[in-house]
Amino acid sequence: MKVNGKHYRTIFLKERVPEIVSIIDQRKLPHQFIIKDLKTSEEVATAIKDMYVRGAGLIGATAAYGMYLATLEASGKNDFDSYLLSVADMLKKTRPTAVNLSWAVDRQLTSIHKVSSVSDKISVARSTAEKIADEDAENCKKIGAHGLKLLDEISNGKKRKPVNILTHCNAGWLAFVDYGSATSPIYQAFDMGIDVHVWVDETRPRNQGASLTAWELGEHGVPHTLIADNTGGHLMQHGLVDLVIVGTDRTTRTGDVANKIGTYLKALAAKDNNIPFYVALPSSSFDWEISDGLTEIPIEERGSDEVKFMTGKANGSMETILVAPEKSPAANFGFDVTPSRLITGLITEKGICQANESDILRLFPEHKK
Amino acid sequence: MKVNGKHYRTIFLKERVPEIVSIIDQRKLPHQFIIKDLKTSEEVATAIKDMYVRGAGLIGATAAYGMYLATLEASGKNDFDSYLLSVADMLKKTRPTAVNLSWAVDRQLTSIHKVSSVSDKISVARSTAEKIADEDAENCKKIGAHGLKLLDEISNGKKRKPVNILTHCNAGWLAFVDYGSATSPIYQAFDMGIDVHVWVDETRPRNQGASLTAWELGEHGVPHTLIADNTGGHLMQHGLVDLVIVGTDRTTRTGDVANKIGTYLKALAAKDNNIPFYVALPSSSFDWEISDGLTEIPIEERGSDEVKFMTGKANGSMETILVAPEKSPAANFGFDVTPSRLITGLITEKGICQANESDILRLFPEHKK
Repeated sequence: MKVNGKHYRTIFLKERVPEIVSIIDQRKLPHQFIIKDLKTSEEVATAIKDMYVRGAGLIGATAAYGMYLATLEASGKNDFDSYLLSVADMLKKTRPTAVNLSWAVDRQLTSIHKVSSVSDKISVARSTAEKIADEDAENCKKIGAHGLKLLDEISNGKKRKPVNILTHCNAGWLAFVDYGSATSPIYQAFDMGIDVHVWVDETRPRNQGASLTAWELGEHGVPHTLIADNTGGHLMQHGLVDLVIVGTDRTTRTGDVANKIGTYLKALAAKDNNIPFYVALPSSSFDWEISDGLTEIPIEERGSDEVKFMTGKANGSMETILVAPEKSPAANFGFDVTPSRLITGLITEKGICQANESDILRLFPEHKK
Repeated sequence: MKVNGKHYRTIFLKERVPEIVSIIDQRKLPHQFIIKDLKTSEEVATAIKDMYVRGAGLIGATAAYGMYLATLEASGKNDFDSYLLSVADMLKKTRPTAVNLSWAVDRQLTSIHKVSSVSDKISVARSTAEKIADEDAENCKKIGAHGLKLLDEISNGKKRKPVNILTHCNAGWLAFVDYGSATSPIYQAFDMGIDVHVWVDETRPRNQGASLTAWELGEHGVPHTLIADNTGGHLMQHGLVDLVIVGTDRTTRTGDVANKIGTYLKALAAKDNNIPFYVALPSSSFDWEISDGLTEIPIEERGSDEVKFMTGKANGSMETILVAPEKSPAANFGFDVTPSRLITGLITEKGICQANESDILRLFPEHKK
């Protein structure tokens, strides 16, 4: 998508220096737009762990590029394979909830394992990383095309008055390689001239909504309004939300959805007010191995400082402030699980399905047991 | 309650200078503890409007003291009564949602009207203000005694393991003259040696949970953990919340509850997880005139800067930072309405009742129509 009128992806190989991976460093958005170079697999791990990059699709693509850098590093080592496995292990441990992470790393290991010479391994790792990134962008584009029909229908039903969409966290193009999942239908609708307006949940404690979603919608010119996370229920009670679209970090084969903490509360409010609640995801976000989201999806706990301190712009420079009593402890669960019963449908690259095993498998029969 | 070991009320007449009203200025908490003097009814109006003071009971008491200052000011005017009415009008307009505000102002007008000489009017206004403040503290104490039984029962059921209470915003002693509504049972349980632990919702955008509730619980030594507003649903899904207690700014005669924005979301989550959801309120927070919370309670909209900017402590001084894109608009609804069907019970100074008209009128038969 565009930043200051120029097209970017969130991750790409550096022009003319393909052994360097460039990313948009999301930590200083919306105040500063910085492209950062990652030169080692360890720098890649840090970038994922410390959230220079975040979001289901982008974490996967970044890990895939990390594995490519690992093959370059391994070429000088005695034991190529065991080095690669240790990097795979390090990358998988950076963020526990996102399933795309291990999916991308395992896909790299399988591809690399299929060829024997070191130079072939490097070349396969590079092309697999590029393929994972391209597919991510392509899948997001398809998700947009399927979701667009929903928005178009609502717009028609409202006689072309603005369609109000609520979203939580950032499942925008910044969370993927391009287009985004939840935002992709919105961007496509907007580009086609459908009147849309997005309620952007701030998304405490890391403020991905305020920092990233509001920023990327603004850069593309999409009308939007920032709200505190507490606000969505009130808006729904008063007919100010036509549908909810969110992303996911991991979805079970039965349609339980792990997403940014607070998603479950919005799903409850949508249900209580008969508002459609959709989850947009590329199939790489399915965890085909598990059926019960509440007991089987690990929920990442992060540091309490993310709750007690906030960073933003003051007088032109970045400042971090304390927003709680120094001595009060804080807890910081990163995700929650929205049970499938609260979800109207899943928007995937293969089409829209209901959040239940049989309808999911209708679109993805290759995962039948 | 205590601050640094010394007992305070949130509002009181200045020692030896009873024509000055002293308040705890809540705007710089938890970082700075400041007592501020209010010398005119206009300063009182500003203190309410700009939230030096906030919270249902305290707004009422502050307005009552404001009316007392107004009688002093009016004594030098030609038309005592019309000046008083103009101040009453100014005070009522400062915050639209809190019913205690007009309740306290009208009570003052009625009392003052009953006597004829100016000196009697001043003296009645002063004693009425003191009475409203005393009653507020007394009612909160009684609310605590009734709510204590609930906590004690849960504690027994859990074999004296810690009782986990979730609260939203600040319905603590800082929101009243003393003790608080939602916190009063907690303080009493804690003081009796019952093991309690409070999950404190941060309460964006004004952070009353992080700034005020966490602070006052900490000053009193009550175990608590600060969480982002998004977190409560997840905690409830995992059995980490035994009950929810919140306050209210206005409750209908049928038991619909207006409280800080986001309360409705927590009530939905409590219902979905079979967790008791209680609202603690002095009867002055009932609006006996209305029956439908969603259509009849006005919801205050505040400025967007409260969402886009945050204030906190950096390097010893207070700093305000921008936490959103400069150009993104923000909406800021102050309250939402939790329908009575989601509420387990109301804890009042007269006892606990269900959130429906007939059970409310069982405790308050004087309001039967």
